[in-house]
Amino acid sequence: MRNEAIEGGAAGSATNGRLDLAVLDQLYHKARTHNAFLDKEVPDALLKEAVELTVQGPTAANTLPFRVVFVRSAEAKERLKPTLSEGNLAKTMAAPVTAIVAYDRKFYDHLPRLFPHADAKAWFTGSEAFANATAQTNGTLQAGYFILALRALGLDAGPMAGFDNAKVDAEFFPDGQFKSNILVNIGYGDHEKLFPRSPRFAPEEVATIL
Amino acid sequence: MRNEAIEGGAAGSATNGRLDLAVLDQLYHKARTHNAFLDKEVPDALLKEAVELTVQGPTAANTLPFRVVFVRSAEAKERLKPTLSEGNLAKTMAAPVTAIVAYDRKFYDHLPRLFPHADAKAWFTGSEAFANATAQTNGTLQAGYFILALRALGLDAGPMAGFDNAKVDAEFFPDGQFKSNILVNIGYGDHEKLFPRSPRFAPEEVATIL
Repeated sequence: MRNEAIEGGAAGSATNGRLDLAVLDQLYHKARTHNAFLDKEVPDALLKEAVELTVQGPTAANTLPFRVVFVRSAEAKERLKPTLSEGNLAKTMAAPVTAIVAYDRKFYDHLPRLFPHADAKAWFTGSEAFANATAQTNGTLQAGYFILALRALGLDAGPMAGFDNAKVDAEFFPDGQFKSNILVNIGYGDHEKLFPRSPRFAPEEVATIL
Repeated sequence: MRNEAIEGGAAGSATNGRLDLAVLDQLYHKARTHNAFLDKEVPDALLKEAVELTVQGPTAANTLPFRVVFVRSAEAKERLKPTLSEGNLAKTMAAPVTAIVAYDRKFYDHLPRLFPHADAKAWFTGSEAFANATAQTNGTLQAGYFILALRALGLDAGPMAGFDNAKVDAEFFPDGQFKSNILVNIGYGDHEKLFPRSPRFAPEEVATIL
């Protein structure tokens, strides 16, 4: 390890500085996965803004395969109910909003507009397996951007893998074009109902510098 | 659409507020994928801090499968060189650091420590396919957290999919436990060498509220 201080890149260059510790805390260090939410409404405008932030993030060839359905109404929640695992059922039915994060297997139809400087559509139409892998990887990267966007807007998130993807797809995406990826409960978290934070790796355990 | 103002959740509750526009700009709106970087060193401490932030993000059952190798030295860059696609070759060899973002297929060996309140290891050891899918999905979510962590620390990122995964794995992860996922060039971006920003979807095009 070099002994240089941790620093941003602001001085005189066109680069950005390091964000304040309070921001890093809100996004990373003190942010928590929430299972219980306060009885406080989540404005539609905030959900839309979270999506607007999400689509700014980088994806391979600007493929942007992320799609999302926000399940808010009682009727829509009832449609989601039979797809949930036992452990996720009560908390998801009680959450103000549940996002079904999905990806579009036919994302390449939009590439003439999203990536106009090359015939990027042709890179994907020849191989369904390559197209699907691209949709899944980039849609999941965008799911990461989305979770942090919710936190950046002052919301709390409870992402979940415990649900029946095939049932969700049959109920919400019956034509097969979109595939569900993760669910995310959204609201203003009840901090009194948090579990203790689980341990994390030290950087040295998962990173190497060559 | 309801007509409520966009707002955070600070007032009187235990929740967070909305981050400043300058922060959202740095992370999302004005952040760009960089292909050219200034001749300015990236401290090891910042790379480690980006990893420290990354591992705070949520993963299913705290599986934390993200692993990363930072390729900085000339020798390590030469090992990476034959794995790069033509279009990514020159810029990657010139970047101050290139991160090989990977995931650990045997992440479950760490679960007795990372998720001590249940026998989570047993959920994954019975099915290699399920374990691999979990590693890939959650490692990719973490790749999203990582890209934004670099930006939050004042660095610029150039994520790439264009490389030969099998060659990277053979060269850097020969025992087969880790699988390469994406590459990310890292440094202080040269804003004068940016391409125009590609178009993005409007939220309404990719999001539905039910």
